[in-house]
Amino acid sequence: MKYCPNCASPLARRVPPGDSLPRWLCDACGSIHYENPRLVVGTVPEWEGRLLLCRRAIEPRYGYWTLPAGFMENDETAGDAALRETVEEAGAHIELAPPFSLISVPRVNQVHLFYRARLIDLEFKPGAETLEVALFEEAQLPWKEIAFRTVGQTLRHWFGDRGRGAFGFHSEDIK
Amino acid sequence: MKYCPNCASPLARRVPPGDSLPRWLCDACGSIHYENPRLVVGTVPEWEGRLLLCRRAIEPRYGYWTLPAGFMENDETAGDAALRETVEEAGAHIELAPPFSLISVPRVNQVHLFYRARLIDLEFKPGAETLEVALFEEAQLPWKEIAFRTVGQTLRHWFGDRGRGAFGFHSEDIK
Repeated sequence: MKYCPNCASPLARRVPPGDSLPRWLCDACGSIHYENPRLVVGTVPEWEGRLLLCRRAIEPRYGYWTLPAGFMENDETAGDAALRETVEEAGAHIELAPPFSLISVPRVNQVHLFYRARLIDLEFKPGAETLEVALFEEAQLPWKEIAFRTVGQTLRHWFGDRGRGAFGFHSEDIK
Repeated sequence: MKYCPNCASPLARRVPPGDSLPRWLCDACGSIHYENPRLVVGTVPEWEGRLLLCRRAIEPRYGYWTLPAGFMENDETAGDAALRETVEEAGAHIELAPPFSLISVPRVNQVHLFYRARLIDLEFKPGAETLEVALFEEAQLPWKEIAFRTVGQTLRHWFGDRGRGAFGFHSEDIK
Protein backbone atom coordinates (compact mmCIF):
# COMPACT_ATOMS: atom_id res chain seq x y z
CA MET A 1 0.00 0.00 0.00
CA LYS A 2 1.63 3.25 -1.18
CA TYR A 3 -1.16 5.64 -2.22
CA CYS A 4 -4.51 6.57 -0.70
CA PRO A 5 -7.35 4.65 -2.41
CA ASN A 6 -9.60 7.61 -1.58
CA CYS A 7 -7.53 10.59 -2.86
CA ALA A 8 -4.32 9.17 -4.47
CA SER A 9 -1.96 11.01 -2.06
CA PRO A 10 1.08 9.15 -0.70
CA LEU A 11 0.39 7.21 2.51
CA ALA A 12 2.37 7.25 5.77
CA ARG A 13 2.76 4.30 8.15
CA ARG A 14 2.23 5.25 11.81
CA VAL A 15 0.09 4.66 14.89
CA PRO A 16 -3.05 6.87 14.77
CA PRO A 17 -4.07 8.75 17.97
CA GLY A 18 -5.92 6.40 20.33
CA ASP A 19 -4.75 3.30 18.45
CA SER A 20 -1.98 0.87 19.40
CA LEU A 21 -0.83 -0.45 15.99
CA PRO A 22 0.68 1.23 12.91
CA ARG A 23 -1.81 1.80 10.07
CA TRP A 24 -1.69 3.34 6.60
CA LEU A 25 -2.68 6.99 7.09
CA CYS A 26 -3.48 9.68 4.54
CA ASP A 27 -2.42 13.12 5.73
CA ALA A 28 -4.22 14.74 2.78
CA CYS A 29 -7.77 13.40 3.31
CA GLY A 30 -7.42 12.00 6.85
CA SER A 31 -8.51 8.46 6.03
CA ILE A 32 -7.07 5.39 7.79
CA HIS A 33 -6.64 2.17 5.81
CA TYR A 34 -6.82 -0.98 7.90
CA GLU A 35 -5.55 -4.40 6.83
CA ASN A 36 -7.12 -7.48 8.40
CA PRO A 37 -6.88 -11.27 8.12
CA ARG A 38 -8.95 -13.02 5.48
CA LEU A 39 -11.19 -16.05 5.87
CA VAL A 40 -10.58 -19.10 3.68
CA VAL A 41 -13.69 -21.29 3.79
CA GLY A 42 -14.23 -24.81 2.50
CA THR A 43 -15.78 -28.23 3.04
CA VAL A 44 -14.90 -31.84 3.87
CA PRO A 45 -17.31 -33.63 1.47
CA GLU A 46 -18.02 -37.26 2.37
CA TRP A 47 -19.51 -40.18 0.42
CA GLU A 48 -19.86 -43.50 2.27
CA GLY A 49 -16.76 -42.98 4.39
CA ARG A 50 -14.63 -41.62 1.54
CA LEU A 51 -13.60 -37.96 1.27
CA LEU A 52 -13.53 -35.79 -1.84
CA LEU A 53 -10.25 -34.05 -2.68
CA CYS A 54 -9.25 -31.74 -5.53
CA ARG A 55 -5.85 -31.71 -7.27
CA ARG A 56 -4.80 -28.10 -7.76
CA ALA A 57 -4.43 -26.67 -11.28
CA ILE A 58 -3.01 -23.38 -9.93
CA GLU A 59 -0.13 -22.11 -7.82
CA PRO A 60 0.64 -22.22 -4.98
CA ARG A 61 1.01 -26.01 -4.67
CA TYR A 62 0.13 -26.88 -8.27
CA GLY A 63 -0.54 -30.64 -8.57
CA TYR A 64 -1.07 -31.16 -4.82
CA TRP A 65 -4.33 -32.34 -3.29
CA THR A 66 -6.64 -30.10 -1.27
CA LEU A 67 -10.16 -29.82 0.08
CA PRO A 68 -12.43 -27.45 -1.89
CA ALA A 69 -11.91 -24.00 -0.29
CA GLY A 70 -11.25 -20.37 -1.10
CA PHE A 71 -11.50 -16.78 0.06
CA MET A 72 -14.85 -15.78 1.49
CA GLU A 73 -16.41 -12.92 -0.52
CA ASN A 74 -18.32 -9.83 0.57
CA ASP A 75 -22.14 -10.19 0.61
CA GLU A 76 -22.10 -13.88 1.49
CA THR A 77 -22.24 -15.95 4.69
CA ALA A 78 -19.47 -18.39 5.65
CA GLY A 79 -21.82 -21.26 4.71
CA ASP A 80 -22.53 -19.64 1.31
CA ALA A 81 -18.77 -19.43 0.72
CA ALA A 82 -18.22 -23.10 1.63
CA LEU A 83 -20.98 -24.21 -0.73
CA ARG A 84 -19.84 -21.92 -3.57
CA GLU A 85 -16.20 -23.05 -3.39
CA THR A 86 -17.27 -26.70 -3.43
CA VAL A 87 -19.28 -26.10 -6.62
CA GLU A 88 -16.56 -23.97 -8.27
CA GLU A 89 -13.61 -26.27 -7.57
CA ALA A 90 -15.19 -29.72 -7.56
CA GLY A 91 -18.55 -29.29 -9.36
CA ALA A 92 -19.94 -31.22 -6.40
CA HIS A 93 -23.50 -31.24 -5.06
CA ILE A 94 -23.42 -31.25 -1.27
CA GLU A 95 -25.54 -30.87 1.81
CA LEU A 96 -23.69 -28.65 4.27
CA ALA A 97 -23.16 -29.96 7.84
CA PRO A 98 -21.83 -28.01 10.88
CA PRO A 99 -18.42 -26.25 10.95
CA PHE A 100 -15.67 -28.73 11.73
CA SER A 101 -12.31 -26.92 11.96
CA LEU A 102 -11.11 -23.35 12.50
CA ILE A 103 -7.38 -22.86 12.03
CA SER A 104 -5.54 -19.53 12.35
CA VAL A 105 -2.48 -19.08 10.14
CA PRO A 106 -1.04 -15.73 11.29
CA ARG A 107 2.04 -16.04 9.05
CA VAL A 108 -0.19 -15.40 6.03
CA ASN A 109 -2.94 -13.46 7.85
CA GLN A 110 -5.59 -16.09 7.22
CA VAL A 111 -8.17 -18.05 9.18
CA HIS A 112 -9.26 -21.33 7.57
CA LEU A 113 -12.75 -22.64 8.30
CA PHE A 114 -13.95 -26.06 7.07
CA TYR A 115 -17.53 -27.39 7.24
CA ARG A 116 -18.41 -31.06 7.15
CA ALA A 117 -20.56 -31.93 4.11
CA ARG A 118 -22.37 -34.88 2.57
CA LEU A 119 -22.17 -35.52 -1.18
CA ILE A 120 -25.68 -35.82 -2.61
CA ASP A 121 -24.53 -37.65 -5.78
CA LEU A 122 -21.33 -38.61 -7.63
CA GLU A 123 -21.74 -36.04 -10.43
CA PHE A 124 -18.62 -34.04 -9.46
CA LYS A 125 -16.13 -32.72 -12.06
CA PRO A 126 -13.03 -30.49 -11.89
CA GLY A 127 -13.54 -26.71 -12.11
CA ALA A 128 -11.10 -24.26 -13.79
CA GLU A 129 -8.66 -24.31 -10.84
CA THR A 130 -8.71 -28.11 -10.44
CA LEU A 131 -6.92 -30.85 -12.43
CA GLU A 132 -8.79 -33.79 -10.97
CA VAL A 133 -11.44 -34.61 -8.33
CA ALA A 134 -11.46 -37.97 -6.55
CA LEU A 135 -12.80 -39.82 -3.49
CA PHE A 136 -10.33 -41.38 -1.06
CA GLU A 137 -10.59 -43.94 1.72
CA GLU A 138 -8.36 -43.15 4.71
CA ALA A 139 -5.75 -45.76 3.67
CA GLN A 140 -5.53 -44.44 0.08
CA LEU A 141 -5.23 -40.79 0.99
CA PRO A 142 -2.22 -39.04 -0.63
CA TRP A 143 -0.89 -37.78 2.73
CA LYS A 144 2.49 -36.73 1.26
CA GLU A 145 0.86 -34.69 -1.50
CA ILE A 146 -1.52 -32.55 0.56
CA ALA A 147 -1.30 -28.90 -0.50
CA PHE A 148 -1.72 -27.10 2.85
CA ARG A 149 -1.18 -27.90 6.53
CA THR A 150 -4.69 -26.71 7.43
CA VAL A 151 -6.09 -29.31 5.03
CA GLY A 152 -3.88 -32.08 6.46
CA GLN A 153 -4.89 -31.21 10.04
CA THR A 154 -8.57 -31.10 9.08
CA LEU A 155 -8.35 -34.51 7.36
CA ARG A 156 -6.57 -36.05 10.37
CA HIS A 157 -9.24 -34.66 12.73
CA TRP A 158 -11.99 -36.02 10.46
CA PHE A 159 -10.66 -39.59 10.42
CA GLY A 160 -9.83 -39.37 14.15
CA ASP A 161 -13.36 -38.26 15.03
CA ARG A 162 -14.89 -40.90 12.77
CA GLY A 163 -12.79 -43.53 14.55
CA ARG A 164 -14.17 -42.33 17.89
CA GLY A 165 -17.71 -42.26 16.48
CA ALA A 166 -18.31 -38.55 17.24
CA PHE A 167 -17.55 -35.44 15.20
CA GLY A 168 -16.51 -32.37 17.22
CA PHE A 169 -15.31 -28.87 16.42
CA HIS A 170 -11.55 -28.35 16.22
CA SER A 171 -9.93 -24.99 16.83
CA GLU A 172 -6.18 -24.51 16.57
CA ASP A 173 -3.31 -22.44 15.21
CA ILE A 174 -0.46 -23.03 12.79
CA LYS A 175 2.40 -20.78 13.86
CA MET B 1 -11.94 2.72 -3.43
CA LYS B 2 -11.12 5.20 -6.25
CA TYR B 3 -7.35 5.12 -6.82
CA CYS B 4 -4.80 2.30 -7.04
CA PRO B 5 -2.96 1.88 -3.69
CA ASN B 6 0.03 0.61 -5.71
CA CYS B 7 0.40 3.35 -8.41
CA ALA B 8 -2.26 6.04 -7.69
CA SER B 9 -4.02 5.63 -11.08
CA PRO B 10 -7.84 5.69 -11.19
CA LEU B 11 -9.44 2.26 -10.67
CA ALA B 12 -12.13 0.58 -12.78
CA ARG B 13 -14.80 -1.81 -11.47
CA ARG B 14 -15.22 -4.93 -13.60
CA VAL B 15 -14.94 -8.71 -13.65
CA PRO B 16 -11.32 -9.79 -14.31
CA PRO B 17 -10.70 -12.60 -16.86
CA GLY B 18 -11.30 -15.99 -15.24
CA ASP B 19 -13.13 -14.45 -12.27
CA SER B 20 -16.88 -14.29 -11.63
CA LEU B 21 -17.24 -11.14 -9.52
CA PRO B 22 -16.47 -7.45 -10.16
CA ARG B 23 -13.22 -6.24 -8.55
CA TRP B 24 -11.28 -2.97 -8.41
CA LEU B 25 -8.80 -3.16 -11.31
CA CYS B 26 -5.88 -0.91 -12.20
CA ASP B 27 -5.35 -0.69 -15.96
CA ALA B 28 -2.06 1.17 -15.41
CA CYS B 29 -0.17 -1.36 -13.26
CA GLY B 30 -2.43 -4.40 -13.72
CA SER B 31 -3.11 -4.99 -10.01
CA ILE B 32 -6.44 -6.33 -8.72
CA HIS B 33 -7.72 -5.10 -5.33
CA TYR B 34 -9.94 -7.58 -3.52
CA GLU B 35 -12.30 -6.72 -0.68
CA ASN B 36 -13.23 -9.47 1.78
CA PRO B 37 -15.27 -9.87 4.98
CA ARG B 38 -13.61 -9.09 8.30
CA LEU B 39 -13.57 -11.18 11.46
CA VAL B 40 -14.83 -9.65 14.70
CA VAL B 41 -13.56 -11.78 17.58
CA GLY B 42 -14.48 -11.69 21.26
CA THR B 43 -15.20 -13.64 24.43
CA VAL B 44 -18.04 -14.60 26.81
CA PRO B 45 -16.22 -14.21 30.16
CA GLU B 46 -17.85 -16.04 33.06
CA TRP B 47 -17.49 -15.77 36.84
CA GLU B 48 -19.55 -18.16 38.96
CA GLY B 49 -22.47 -18.23 36.52
CA ARG B 50 -22.42 -14.50 35.84
CA LEU B 51 -21.26 -13.00 32.52
CA LEU B 52 -19.10 -9.93 32.01
CA LEU B 53 -20.48 -7.21 29.74
CA CYS B 54 -19.05 -3.83 28.65
CA ARG B 55 -21.08 -0.65 28.16
CA ARG B 56 -19.86 1.04 24.97
CA ALA B 57 -18.15 4.46 25.14
CA ILE B 58 -18.08 4.74 21.32
CA GLU B 59 -20.43 4.70 18.37
CA PRO B 60 -22.09 2.70 16.98
CA ARG B 61 -24.42 1.86 19.88
CA TYR B 62 -22.90 4.25 22.44
CA GLY B 63 -24.21 3.39 25.93
CA TYR B 64 -25.40 -0.11 24.97
CA TRP B 65 -24.01 -3.32 26.48
CA THR B 66 -21.78 -5.73 24.57
CA LEU B 67 -19.36 -8.61 25.02
CA PRO B 68 -15.67 -7.65 24.68
CA ALA B 69 -14.88 -8.01 20.94
CA GLY B 70 -13.26 -6.26 18.02
CA PHE B 71 -11.63 -6.63 14.63
CA MET B 72 -8.99 -9.35 14.37
CA GLU B 73 -5.60 -7.88 13.39
CA ASN B 74 -2.91 -9.15 11.04
CA ASP B 75 -0.12 -11.22 12.68
CA GLU B 76 -2.37 -12.68 15.38
CA THR B 77 -4.45 -15.84 15.80
CA ALA B 78 -8.21 -15.70 16.45
CA GLY B 79 -7.50 -16.70 20.07
CA ASP B 80 -4.91 -13.91 20.41
CA ALA B 81 -7.53 -11.45 19.14
CA ALA B 82 -10.18 -12.67 21.61
CA LEU B 83 -7.75 -12.33 24.52
CA ARG B 84 -6.45 -8.92 23.39
CA GLU B 85 -9.92 -7.43 22.97
CA THR B 86 -10.96 -8.69 26.42
CA VAL B 87 -7.94 -6.95 27.97
CA GLU B 88 -8.38 -3.74 25.91
CA GLU B 89 -12.11 -3.29 26.49
CA ALA B 90 -12.65 -4.78 29.94
CA GLY B 91 -9.16 -4.93 31.52
CA ALA B 92 -10.12 -8.50 32.39
CA HIS B 93 -7.85 -11.46 33.11
CA ILE B 94 -9.25 -14.57 31.49
CA GLU B 95 -8.49 -18.13 30.63
CA LEU B 96 -9.69 -18.79 27.09
CA ALA B 97 -12.04 -21.76 26.49
CA PRO B 98 -13.17 -23.23 23.10
CA PRO B 99 -14.94 -21.19 20.41
CA PHE B 100 -18.65 -20.92 21.16
CA SER B 101 -20.43 -19.02 18.36
CA LEU B 102 -19.72 -18.13 14.73
CA ILE B 103 -22.22 -15.73 13.19
CA SER B 104 -22.07 -14.38 9.63
CA VAL B 105 -23.44 -10.88 9.08
CA PRO B 106 -23.25 -10.42 5.29
CA ARG B 107 -25.03 -7.03 5.40
CA VAL B 108 -21.86 -5.52 6.92
CA ASN B 109 -19.37 -8.07 5.51
CA GLN B 110 -18.44 -9.43 8.92
CA VAL B 111 -18.14 -12.79 10.65
CA HIS B 112 -18.40 -12.66 14.46
CA LEU B 113 -16.59 -15.33 16.49
CA PHE B 114 -16.96 -15.62 20.28
CA TYR B 115 -14.91 -17.85 22.60
CA ARG B 116 -16.05 -18.98 26.01
CA ALA B 117 -13.75 -17.72 28.78
CA ARG B 118 -13.31 -17.97 32.54
CA LEU B 119 -12.45 -14.87 34.58
CA ILE B 120 -9.35 -15.53 36.68
CA ASP B 121 -10.05 -12.67 39.14
CA LEU B 122 -12.37 -9.68 39.58
CA GLU B 123 -9.74 -7.04 38.75
CA PHE B 124 -11.50 -5.84 35.58
CA LYS B 125 -11.86 -2.14 34.69
CA PRO B 126 -13.19 -0.23 31.64
CA GLY B 127 -10.78 0.46 28.76
CA ALA B 128 -10.83 3.61 26.56
CA GLU B 129 -13.81 2.39 24.49
CA THR B 130 -15.87 1.27 27.50
CA LEU B 131 -17.97 3.28 29.98
CA GLU B 132 -18.52 0.50 32.49
CA VAL B 133 -17.81 -3.21 33.01
CA ALA B 134 -20.15 -5.40 35.08
CA LEU B 135 -21.14 -9.00 35.81
CA PHE B 136 -24.73 -10.08 35.21
CA GLU B 137 -26.83 -13.04 36.27
CA GLU B 138 -29.23 -14.23 33.57
CA ALA B 139 -32.23 -12.57 35.26
CA GLN B 140 -30.46 -9.18 35.58
CA LEU B 141 -29.14 -9.05 32.04
CA PRO B 142 -30.03 -5.80 30.19
CA TRP B 143 -31.63 -7.66 27.26
CA LYS B 144 -33.18 -4.49 25.81
CA GLU B 145 -29.89 -2.61 25.85
CA ILE B 146 -27.68 -5.12 24.03
CA ALA B 147 -25.59 -3.39 21.35
CA PHE B 148 -25.55 -6.02 18.58
CA ARG B 149 -27.69 -8.99 17.50
CA THR B 150 -24.65 -11.30 17.38
CA VAL B 151 -24.04 -10.53 21.07
CA GLY B 152 -27.69 -11.14 21.98
CA GLN B 153 -27.73 -14.48 20.12
CA THR B 154 -24.46 -15.56 21.74
CA LEU B 155 -25.76 -14.70 25.22
CA ARG B 156 -29.01 -16.61 24.60
CA HIS B 157 -27.05 -19.66 23.41
CA TRP B 158 -24.79 -19.46 26.48
CA PHE B 159 -27.66 -19.46 29.00
CA GLY B 160 -29.51 -22.10 26.94
CA ASP B 161 -26.49 -24.42 26.90
CA ARG B 162 -25.84 -23.84 30.60
CA GLY B 163 -29.46 -24.79 31.31
CA ARG B 164 -28.96 -28.05 29.40
CA GLY B 165 -25.65 -28.68 31.19
CA ALA B 166 -23.57 -28.87 27.98
CA PHE B 167 -21.86 -26.14 25.97
CA GLY B 168 -21.82 -26.68 22.18
CA PHE B 169 -20.67 -24.68 19.18
CA HIS B 170 -23.27 -22.47 17.49
CA SER B 171 -23.04 -21.48 13.84
CA GLU B 172 -25.62 -19.23 12.22
CA ASP B 173 -26.31 -16.20 10.04
CA ILE B 174 -27.98 -12.85 10.53
CA LYS B 175 -29.45 -11.81 7.19
